[in-house]
Amino acid sequence: MAEQNKTWLDKIMARPFAFPSESAPGSPVVISSRIRLARNLNKYPFPPASSQESDAQVGELVQLAIKRSRAMGVGCISLNVNSLNNVERMILLERQLASRELLKSPGKQYVHISRSGNCSIMVNEEDHLRIQTVLPGLQLRRAWKKVNELDDALSQELDIAYDRDLGYLTACPSNVGTGLRASVMLHLAGLSLKDNIGQLERALAKLNLTVRGMYGEGSGSYGNMYQISNQSTLGESEEEIIDRLGRVIDQIVEHEESARRSLLANERTRLLDKVGRSFGLLRYSYMLSESEAFEALSGLRLGVALNMFDFLDMQCVNELFNSVHSGVIACHAGRELEKKECDTLRAKTVRERLRENDCR
Amino acid sequence: MAEQNKTWLDKIMARPFAFPSESAPGSPVVISSRIRLARNLNKYPFPPASSQESDAQVGELVQLAIKRSRAMGVGCISLNVNSLNNVERMILLERQLASRELLKSPGKQYVHISRSGNCSIMVNEEDHLRIQTVLPGLQLRRAWKKVNELDDALSQELDIAYDRDLGYLTACPSNVGTGLRASVMLHLAGLSLKDNIGQLERALAKLNLTVRGMYGEGSGSYGNMYQISNQSTLGESEEEIIDRLGRVIDQIVEHEESARRSLLANERTRLLDKVGRSFGLLRYSYMLSESEAFEALSGLRLGVALNMFDFLDMQCVNELFNSVHSGVIACHAGRELEKKECDTLRAKTVRERLRENDCR
Repeated sequence: MAEQNKTWLDKIMARPFAFPSESAPGSPVVISSRIRLARNLNKYPFPPASSQESDAQVGELVQLAIKRSRAMGVGCISLNVNSLNNVERMILLERQLASRELLKSPGKQYVHISRSGNCSIMVNEEDHLRIQTVLPGLQLRRAWKKVNELDDALSQELDIAYDRDLGYLTACPSNVGTGLRASVMLHLAGLSLKDNIGQLERALAKLNLTVRGMYGEGSGSYGNMYQISNQSTLGESEEEIIDRLGRVIDQIVEHEESARRSLLANERTRLLDKVGRSFGLLRYSYMLSESEAFEALSGLRLGVALNMFDFLDMQCVNELFNSVHSGVIACHAGRELEKKECDTLRAKTVRERLRENDCR
Repeated sequence: MAEQNKTWLDKIMARPFAFPSESAPGSPVVISSRIRLARNLNKYPFPPASSQESDAQVGELVQLAIKRSRAMGVGCISLNVNSLNNVERMILLERQLASRELLKSPGKQYVHISRSGNCSIMVNEEDHLRIQTVLPGLQLRRAWKKVNELDDALSQELDIAYDRDLGYLTACPSNVGTGLRASVMLHLAGLSLKDNIGQLERALAKLNLTVRGMYGEGSGSYGNMYQISNQSTLGESEEEIIDRLGRVIDQIVEHEESARRSLLANERTRLLDKVGRSFGLLRYSYMLSESEAFEALSGLRLGVALNMFDFLDMQCVNELFNSVHSGVIACHAGRELEKKECDTLRAKTVRERLRENDCR
């Protein structure tokens, strides 16, 4: 299809997802790094207290600023959330381009996505602006550089609410200051299998860091994917927040790798069982819920990382991870799906892909 | 090994288990038919109120009667429960040759097993005598004939407690009368998958019939194997009890077959999913609990019954069912096993057997 004939959805579906290539820093334990900034405009009420009219004005101002500043580069996709169907909303959520909150808001919400899909700007979520960059692997500093450039460019065009003492003003006090949240998605299959996640959470809480599931707050664990992020935005500079998080992530990666080595050396049967069951389920089931698929793919990914399969590589597993999202399945089907239908198609996709490899 | 050098355990392990050959009546839904009679001796207190001394005397009298009457044929195995180790007890329970109650009693309990393994006599369980026959498939009348002959032969030698009005006297009033319990083991995988077992239980309760799991009272469902038996022993002759149960079993078999047809026609994906998951688990897991193994083998057995596998037949599945009992695994290992060890060996047995077939 010629580029100009593609819909925005085609473009987003065509780009590689956050799952890193094997050469990404921190791979295979680190999945992706994300930095987001919360920003608001002076003279306009902040979203929780704003009117649709003022939200619409903010939306127009941001659109204009993006255009004038060329901050998002050429080929930027600008979407009015209101006009999106359910499948499109699911895709934006799964690709971490928009939050659940933005997508369910009934008013004047917008999202702008850079051509690469690495940057997105949510408009009228909890704050007027949520500017974010997601990069594969452990690349917090590069993500920060990108999002900072974006912020600088937009600030030239917009009157951003900033207080000399407090820093950036935000709708929720927990974001006041830098307005920055840095988070890293990790695949902690080894620590999960060793039941060490609770311990990790308690240790991180003491460092003022938060552990959340793949889909953010309250989403629970999904395929042993965990997002680790800073909790406070006051009292530390952006660089300090990022460096501190980076150091902790290095340690967690080490813990995870040590857990995997320990499983190989001391609990080999338990490890083989987890990996084997995962493969058996993915290879032979005919209905797979999304959470089951993620849990089993997590086991498979662990096995592949530990070189247990001669007919599977990390790229194949990462592609499978991308293919089992409900939104992706609905998107391929071209319509919204009932759960049972979706579970059946999900199982078929995974089963056939694994059969291809298995029988090669 | 020459027959005379075999231990009693070798002999029992060598004989085919209750799982029927494909030619057995009612196969593959009906697994086995069992008739047991409760009998007691006059002049000796019934077991719940008896002394060890009197139990020992009863034990000797029964042993003598078996010998004199030749009721159990040549090659009868006579065991003193007290002298059995845990693995031996497990085997007797799994093979339905002795009950959990008999095996855990601390006094003078005995069990006599015919060479074929089809007949056994428990001594000093709830009654002085529990005489039973188990045959593969639906063979209630033949089982009744066998157990009746055994009872007649023993009655020549023993002074059996009998009341002209009440019939045979037993320790528990629920057995007074014929003292007969007829039960049929069924593999109700289709009705289970359609969630129809509760409905079946309620319908059977109205007919004064009981549904129990594979290992008897309170054992719960295990691999969708259910024992259906008469509840009352008074007011009907032995033949009436057996014929009535037989007619109900015919109907249940029809229900089960209809459930399977309906799954094939209307819920194919659900059926394939159950069968596929079962195969995947058995083929690739490295630790399998007994109940998990039975549940998955139930799914596999359903698939084989519906001709879904070209590399598996019913005989192979039935052999697998026999091989996953904890007692059988311990017996092959030659010693008592920790749960984890047993689960690992169970998974290995099943996995390797299925790999052999799969890769043929």
